[in-house]
Amino acid sequence: MATINDNYLKLKAGYLFPEIARRVNAFAQANADAKIIKLGIGDVTEPLPQACRTAMIQATEEMGVSETFKGYGPEQGYAWLREKIAHHDFQARGCEVDADEIFISDGSKCDTGNILEIFGNNNTIAVTDPVYPVYVDTNVMAGNTGDAKKNGEYEGLVYLPITAENNFTAEIPGEKVDLIYLCFPNNPTGATASKEDLQAWVDYAQANNSIIFFDAAYEAYITDSSIPHSIYEIEGARDCAIEFRSFSKNAGFTGTRCALTVVPKTLTAKAEDGSDVELWKLWNRRQSTKFNGVSYIVQRGAEAVYSQEGKEQIQQLVSFYLENAKIIREKLTAAGLQVHGGVNAPYVWVKTPNELSSWDFFDKLLNTCNVVGTPGSGFGAAGEGYFRISAFNSRKNVEEAMKRITEKFKV
Amino acid sequence: MATINDNYLKLKAGYLFPEIARRVNAFAQANADAKIIKLGIGDVTEPLPQACRTAMIQATEEMGVSETFKGYGPEQGYAWLREKIAHHDFQARGCEVDADEIFISDGSKCDTGNILEIFGNNNTIAVTDPVYPVYVDTNVMAGNTGDAKKNGEYEGLVYLPITAENNFTAEIPGEKVDLIYLCFPNNPTGATASKEDLQAWVDYAQANNSIIFFDAAYEAYITDSSIPHSIYEIEGARDCAIEFRSFSKNAGFTGTRCALTVVPKTLTAKAEDGSDVELWKLWNRRQSTKFNGVSYIVQRGAEAVYSQEGKEQIQQLVSFYLENAKIIREKLTAAGLQVHGGVNAPYVWVKTPNELSSWDFFDKLLNTCNVVGTPGSGFGAAGEGYFRISAFNSRKNVEEAMKRITEKFKV
Repeated sequence: MATINDNYLKLKAGYLFPEIARRVNAFAQANADAKIIKLGIGDVTEPLPQACRTAMIQATEEMGVSETFKGYGPEQGYAWLREKIAHHDFQARGCEVDADEIFISDGSKCDTGNILEIFGNNNTIAVTDPVYPVYVDTNVMAGNTGDAKKNGEYEGLVYLPITAENNFTAEIPGEKVDLIYLCFPNNPTGATASKEDLQAWVDYAQANNSIIFFDAAYEAYITDSSIPHSIYEIEGARDCAIEFRSFSKNAGFTGTRCALTVVPKTLTAKAEDGSDVELWKLWNRRQSTKFNGVSYIVQRGAEAVYSQEGKEQIQQLVSFYLENAKIIREKLTAAGLQVHGGVNAPYVWVKTPNELSSWDFFDKLLNTCNVVGTPGSGFGAAGEGYFRISAFNSRKNVEEAMKRITEKFKV
Repeated sequence: MATINDNYLKLKAGYLFPEIARRVNAFAQANADAKIIKLGIGDVTEPLPQACRTAMIQATEEMGVSETFKGYGPEQGYAWLREKIAHHDFQARGCEVDADEIFISDGSKCDTGNILEIFGNNNTIAVTDPVYPVYVDTNVMAGNTGDAKKNGEYEGLVYLPITAENNFTAEIPGEKVDLIYLCFPNNPTGATASKEDLQAWVDYAQANNSIIFFDAAYEAYITDSSIPHSIYEIEGARDCAIEFRSFSKNAGFTGTRCALTVVPKTLTAKAEDGSDVELWKLWNRRQSTKFNGVSYIVQRGAEAVYSQEGKEQIQQLVSFYLENAKIIREKLTAAGLQVHGGVNAPYVWVKTPNELSSWDFFDKLLNTCNVVGTPGSGFGAAGEGYFRISAFNSRKNVEEAMKRITEKFKV
C-alpha cells in the first residue's frame, strides 16, 4: 500500500499566486469590460535583451550541425558561463568565489527549495516575516515544521519580523538557529541590508555554526553603492553562506529560465557522528544525480549577459523598472499612502490605509481601480496590513494604474 | 549547528558515469594519440531536427517583442504542448490521458528523482537489477534505504533481477512492495516488456495498492508493433501508474532539456489517517512550489516534434540509431560475443566473455580498442558479467569501433 508524504497535508490551501489568479479570474469573468492591470506577481514584461537573443539563435543553429551539436552538458553548467559569472559578479567586487563553486540551474525557485535536501531534518530554521513563500512551503514539505497555526505561521519555524517598527531589518534571533533564509534586496518589502547588517548575520552564523541561505535575486536593482550585492562581500561569509542568484530579474529570464547557486568549498555542516562534511560535495552529488543541466541554448543566452552589449542592455532594463518603481512611489505617496522600498528594489511595499487587511485592500484595489497587487499577509503574518506593488510592467500600464489609483482610490 | 542529510554518506563513491569519465580521462592522458570512441553514456550525437530549431528560433525572436514576450509560464507547461502530447503520444494509441494530467519538465532524471518527494518514507521499494542508477541513488538520498552491502545493493530495497536466465523479464515479487520502478524498453539491457508482462505488473499493483513508476524514455525505439509504448495501453494502469517520458532520445534533446510526466487524476495513495489522497494534487503542488516551468523557447521546440515535418525528422533520427544498433549487434556477434537488446532499444547488452568482470571488460575494451562502453555492474549486482554498448554515435564512429573490436578483440 503506497503512502504519501503527509507533510503536504499541512500546507495551506493555495500557494499565494494561484489564489490571486483565482480572484482575478473571478473578477474578470464578472466584469468582462474591465481592463485589469497586473502589478502582482514579480514577472518581467520587457523584451529579452538583443545580446541574449542573438546568442541563443546562434546556439540553436550550432545544434543543427553534428560538429557543434551539444548533448548532455556538465550538470553544474558549462565552464565558460561559470567563469564569466565568477569574474563579473563576484571577483570584480572583491568576492573570493571560484567558477567551480558555481552551479547553474533553471531557477532560484528550484534551488532554494532543493537545497534543503542536503541538510538534516533536525535543524532549527529561521525565515523573515514577511517572506518569499517558497522558503516556508518547501520546509513544510520536507517535514521541517509542525502544523500551521491560526495566523498562518508554522510550528517549529522561527519567524523574524521585518516591519516599519524595526526599519525592515531582520533582528538577530536571541535563540540559536541552524539555517537562516535572508533575501536582500528584499522580496517583498524592497528593503535592503547594509554591510553592517550582513556582517552581524555572518558573525552570528559563524558563532553558531549556522548556514545562511542568501537570496540575491534582486541585486541588480541596488542603486546605493554602499549596499553589498553579494553576501561574499562580507568577511567570513565563505564559511557560513550559500548564495542564490538568477537571470530572471536582471536580464528578463523569467520565461527563459536560468539561475545559479554558489556553494563555497570552505563550507561545512555536521554529520551525525560529529564530523564536518563539505556541503559543496553534497550539492554536487545532488545536482549530478537529480539534474541534467540547463539547456545549452539558454546557457549561451546567459553568457551574453556578460558581454559589453549585454551589460548595457541589462542596465537599461533595470533602469526602466526602477523608473517604474519611482513613479509608483511618487504617485502612491501623492495619493496619501505610506510607501517603503522601490529605491534599490523593484518592489514597493505599501502600508494599507485605515487598518484595512491586506486582502481587503487587494479586493478594494481590484474593484475600484482594476489594479492587481499582492497582499502582504500572503508573505507571512507580519505582512498583514501591507501590500506589494511590483514595478515589473510597461510604462504605460504603470502610469495608467497610478492614474486610476490617484483618481479613484479614496484613502 | 547546521547538520547534513546523513543519507548522502551511504552513497557509494561515484555515480557510474563520473567514474567512467575518470578512467577515460586517465587513459587519454596516458595515451595522447589514442582516438577514443565513446559508446558509453546514452547521449545522442546527431543534429537537433530542423523543425525544432526553426520553432526555437522563432520563439527566441518572439521574446524580443513586448507583445509576444513570455515571462513565467504555467509551472506544469503550456497547454498547447500538453495537448499535442496527450493527443499524439497517448490518445492516438487509445490511452486515456488528458492534457491536464501531463507535467512538462526539464528532464526525466529530475522527475524520476523528485517524484519520491510526494511519497511517504515507509514505502517498500522495488527496482530491477540492473537498473538506471538514478532510481536507486535518489532513494538512498531520501532515506528510503539502509546501508550499502558489499555487492553494491542497499539494505531495504527489493531487487528484481533481469538477466538472460529469466529472459530479461522482471519477475513479479513474491512479497508486497509499494513503489515499483519499471523501464521498458529497458535501460540498460535493451529488453522490452510485452502487453502480458505489463498487465501482470498492473494487476499486481492494483491488488497491492502499489504505484508503478514507468519510465518510457526509449519508447520511440520500439519496432515491434505488439509491444506497448505506454503503460496506459494496459487496462487498469490509470489507477496504479505514473509514466515518465522524455524528448532526449527521440528528438535529441539531451542538451536542449525537455521531458514530461503523466500523473493520472485517478491515482491515489494513502495518508497516515488511511484516507486516499490524489497524487496529481500533490505533484502539482510540488511542481508549482519548487519549479518554474521549462523555457518557453524549449517548449516551442518540443511542440515542433509533433508537426508533420518534425515527426518525419524524428523517425529518421530513431531509424539512424537503430541501424547503428543493428550494426553493433551483428559485428559483436560475428566477433564471438553474446548480445541482447538493440532491436527495440538503442542499447546492446553484451555478455562479457570468459567470465570477465564488467569493469575488467571495460578496461580491456578501452586498452585494446580505445572503445568506451558501460560496465553492467555499474547498473547493479545482477549486471555483473554484462556490458552496455550504446548506439548513440555517428555511423562512422560506430563502424570504426566495431572494426577495431572485430580486428583486435580476442574473445
